[in-house]
Amino acid sequence: MANSKFEYVKAFEQPDTLLQNTWVVVRIDGRGFTKLCAKYAFEKPNDKRALDLMNAAARAVMTDLPDITIAYGVSDEYSFVFHKSCTLFERRASKLVTTIVSTFTAHYIHSWSTYFPDAPLTLPLPSFDGRAVCYPSVQNLRDYMSWRQVDCHINNLYNTTFWALIQLGGMDNRAAEELLAGTVSGDKNEILFSRFHINYNNEPEMYKKGSVVFRDYELVEPGTHNVQADADAIAEPVSMTKSQTEKDKKRRNKARIVIEHLDIIKDDFWDRRPWLLSNKPGKAPKET
Amino acid sequence: MANSKFEYVKAFEQPDTLLQNTWVVVRIDGRGFTKLCAKYAFEKPNDKRALDLMNAAARAVMTDLPDITIAYGVSDEYSFVFHKSCTLFERRASKLVTTIVSTFTAHYIHSWSTYFPDAPLTLPLPSFDGRAVCYPSVQNLRDYMSWRQVDCHINNLYNTTFWALIQLGGMDNRAAEELLAGTVSGDKNEILFSRFHINYNNEPEMYKKGSVVFRDYELVEPGTHNVQADADAIAEPVSMTKSQTEKDKKRRNKARIVIEHLDIIKDDFWDRRPWLLSNKPGKAPKET
Amino acid sequence: MANSKFEYVKAFEQPDTLLQNTWVVVRIDGRGFTKLCAKYAFEKPNDKRALDLMNAAARAVMTDLPDITIAYGVSDEYSFVFHKSCTLFERRASKLVTTIVSTFTAHYIHSWSTYFPDAPLTLPLPSFDGRAVCYPSVQNLRDYMSWRQVDCHINNLYNTTFWALIQLGGMDNRAAEELLAGTVSGDKNEILFSRFHINYNNEPEMYKKGSVVFRDYELVEPGTHNVQADADAIAEPVSMTKSQTEKDKKRRNKARIVIEHLDIIKDDFWDRRPWLLSNKPGKAPKET
Amino acid sequence: MANSKFEYVKAFEQPDTLLQNTWVVVRIDGRGFTKLCAKYAFEKPNDKRALDLMNAAARAVMTDLPDITIAYGVSDEYSFVFHKSCTLFERRASKLVTTIVSTFTAHYIHSWSTYFPDAPLTLPLPSFDGRAVCYPSVQNLRDYMSWRQVDCHINNLYNTTFWALIQLGGMDNRAAEELLAGTVSGDKNEILFSRFHINYNNEPEMYKKGSVVFRDYELVEPGTHNVQADADAIAEPVSMTKSQTEKDKKRRNKARIVIEHLDIIKDDFWDRRPWLLSNKPGKAPKET
Repeated sequence: MANSKFEYVKAFEQPDTLLQNTWVVVRIDGRGFTKLCAKYAFEKPNDKRALDLMNAAARAVMTDLPDITIAYGVSDEYSFVFHKSCTLFERRASKLVTTIVSTFTAHYIHSWSTYFPDAPLTLPLPSFDGRAVCYPSVQNLRDYMSWRQVDCHINNLYNTTFWALIQLGGMDNRAAEELLAGTVSGDKNEILFSRFHINYNNEPEMYKKGSVVFRDYELVEPGTHNVQADADAIAEPVSMTKSQTEKDKKRRNKARIVIEHLDIIKDDFWDRRPWLLSNKPGKAPKET
Repeated sequence: MANSKFEYVKAFEQPDTLLQNTWVVVRIDGRGFTKLCAKYAFEKPNDKRALDLMNAAARAVMTDLPDITIAYGVSDEYSFVFHKSCTLFERRASKLVTTIVSTFTAHYIHSWSTYFPDAPLTLPLPSFDGRAVCYPSVQNLRDYMSWRQVDCHINNLYNTTFWALIQLGGMDNRAAEELLAGTVSGDKNEILFSRFHINYNNEPEMYKKGSVVFRDYELVEPGTHNVQADADAIAEPVSMTKSQTEKDKKRRNKARIVIEHLDIIKDDFWDRRPWLLSNKPGKAPKET
Repeated sequence: MANSKFEYVKAFEQPDTLLQNTWVVVRIDGRGFTKLCAKYAFEKPNDKRALDLMNAAARAVMTDLPDITIAYGVSDEYSFVFHKSCTLFERRASKLVTTIVSTFTAHYIHSWSTYFPDAPLTLPLPSFDGRAVCYPSVQNLRDYMSWRQVDCHINNLYNTTFWALIQLGGMDNRAAEELLAGTVSGDKNEILFSRFHINYNNEPEMYKKGSVVFRDYELVEPGTHNVQADADAIAEPVSMTKSQTEKDKKRRNKARIVIEHLDIIKDDFWDRRPWLLSNKPGKAPKET
Repeated sequence: MANSKFEYVKAFEQPDTLLQNTWVVVRIDGRGFTKLCAKYAFEKPNDKRALDLMNAAARAVMTDLPDITIAYGVSDEYSFVFHKSCTLFERRASKLVTTIVSTFTAHYIHSWSTYFPDAPLTLPLPSFDGRAVCYPSVQNLRDYMSWRQVDCHINNLYNTTFWALIQLGGMDNRAAEELLAGTVSGDKNEILFSRFHINYNNEPEMYKKGSVVFRDYELVEPGTHNVQADADAIAEPVSMTKSQTEKDKKRRNKARIVIEHLDIIKDDFWDRRPWLLSNKPGKAPKET
């Protein structure tokens, strides 16, 4: 067929397979969301509707892609984690990243009117970019997650204080900025409390901790074992019979995807949810 | 700040810069569109609404990203071409690909109800994946474009005949498939004409040729010069003063983005639109 | 300076940094060594001089590059392992690979006359190619090493039997090949013993096991701890003071590089030499 | 066979194929040659023996690898160019680079005693590292070559003046350095001439221009055609019959590899040797 004359161009595509046996994190970020916040008058320092919309889109991504074991979102970004044994799309970076970005965007646009019924979308539409990063060890992965959550904390404490100074204290942006320059956490807590009677600890967990999305199974009693030491051993894939694989798949599909606002820096979170690192679905949680 | 302890994880991100001075083609593909066609009862062999929606999304992508010089779409795929001198996002593959995939998806979802007013979207939503490929020479780039257009022709001739046999000839899928096995173009044209009085040449250009999207300037009289020989010379970036760059940018933004259904395999298309390879905006077309 | 006009070409060099926190294995292979064996009449199935020369070159590479923790050689190939915490040459693949290949080649050529005093080198000269591969976990690394050693065993048993049939049994190549087709290890052992009174177990260790090159410290008593479980924990880099780093470096430089022919598949080898995975130099071995 | 259990580790090797239809430049550099110069008392500013040894090794590399079309050397570095149509080793970067580095090193070590009969090699031995870079257009490739030759000129003029001040002018290093700080070419020429009666133009061509290595065919009369414009067209691979390919190969193998010291920045060099860009061997040069 005449096509063969041109088909040689296929060979220019270069492989982009991600290194095997590493945790794959796909992080997506809103493009130009500063403008978007202004355009749709997002509330400051946090707009609950906007965060709920992000979370709804993330949950949809995890439903469509059961290979994702956990996701973490803050502000206009979301990180999705594939287990190190994952072989989806033969671990091709562009397939993994674009599938997540596209699915996320589709749901963000589609659900917009649910969360912003009074602010119809106009051009240019919201969009996201993304990238994949490999982490070889559990420690690296957990440090990545901690990095994002510490970032959430730092930014939220700053923004909460900044906007209190403006909204409650009547300052303008520049004055607030100058006042906060060089302050540490303690100073900001103090400003919030002494000037505005705001106890930062009582702020909503979603704003302070970000959002953690995962499949929910029965929590495991925190053991006395040193998680640090054998986290990589736990994460080691075990070879399974086909019927076992099928059973796992079913349990995973049946599991409820929850969105919580927890500390993911300390061991406790991971200790009690061993399925996140082992990729072995746990028991269905008791009905309550 | 405490964050520094975890920030080392940033260093795991690996660069994915695309080789300089090469044409970058980002091709996106609908994910699982066979199911989608069935679910929303797309017309066979071509659903004009679905193609118009693809084209609307592609036009929006080109409006948002003026660095794209030309795009070509057929069925559920679209290819976007960045000029070889493009430096958008420092040519990072993941940024370029995800931005296009996300923008395209956003518009596809957002405009769905315009093209399918009676078929509201249900889960799972349509989504797209994508990849970037570099082509060093104009010949490679044109061969890529030709490859896609030949593919369009082959598939459309097949599908047109296949569905005529079913819809007009009353065959079932398997019988139609068997009848077409081993046939060449001439055979299919003959089947269409002798059995159904369909002259394939009279089929809509959009189905036969696919859709070409580009900024429209005044056509250049086809010269006698050998385009093949100096296409790469034409495409060589020229150094410009800043004010010239600004002027070009303005002209590009003012240009009308058109969607046409033309032969892009022969020289004529490229010959008469030198701006596609030179990246120098042409003259505004005369009002008609 | 006029150079600036051309210096833009530097930007075409693309980064090739290897993923952090992974074990880097650089394997080199002799190019066209089948011809070389014939040309210099290497003894079959093993030429002790040729293997000693390979080992001498490997030892020289490890002396020049203290970042290499262990090397394993068999036939005309050698694998060099960098600890996962290694930052030599910023982990650039091409630097790491070419430095090893070049240093190895230099010593191979330079020491040739020591091992082959009666066979001066003629053109074309021996040369080697190489590549770098990353392994995320200790298990992956050990499996790589095991893979090479099993390969050594399989090939050596085959070759020993094959050449016994020819050299002692008077067969020609084809007859020996046919006789061995489809045989398993037990069959070959049996042929060697029943036909030629050769007990394969008594063959030289270097031929059966290959050569393991490493820095020698005092062996550790094999504990009862599960090495499998916490090998990755052992390998985790510990942050050190600068003076500790210096002390380690000195101890490493003083350590004797030994070449032994041991089983590296079983745990015992790694258990008793924890420095190979921890990258912490051990105690100097007692004088004997 | 038991090997299969470990063989999975092969899959960790990642492809490193260089983009098709681009010029591949492999540049190698001496490792730690400053120390080496001191150790073997290389003459300053240029040691003819050392450069002749580099050139001998480069010629050997080109003999072993007929796919290399041209090489350029200066000081302790050498650049080897593969034609953009080259498919050697399936264009795998590590194979191409290590083969060149190893072959070059082998010859450098092997021929050392020919050029330095009175200075036997001692440890550590000379070695080289290397890297591959892709250039899409002829212009990029020629600019790369020009970059290296301009670098040669700049360094040689500086070094010639610097060492004249020391060796003939009795200055120490620091005084010479200070005197040259901020000078332009004209100043250095002037210093050489007025202080030491050295006309830089009369310096040996090898020092001023570096060394160009290529297969020699009959020179072509410089035409009036604009080389710039159709260099890429000339370089376009033409499809050939198998017998034509064989004929070309034979002509290439028969061609004499010459080492000359010419200007490779101006068009003339390339104009008169069209085979360098076309990869079509020329006519054997007339006997003289």
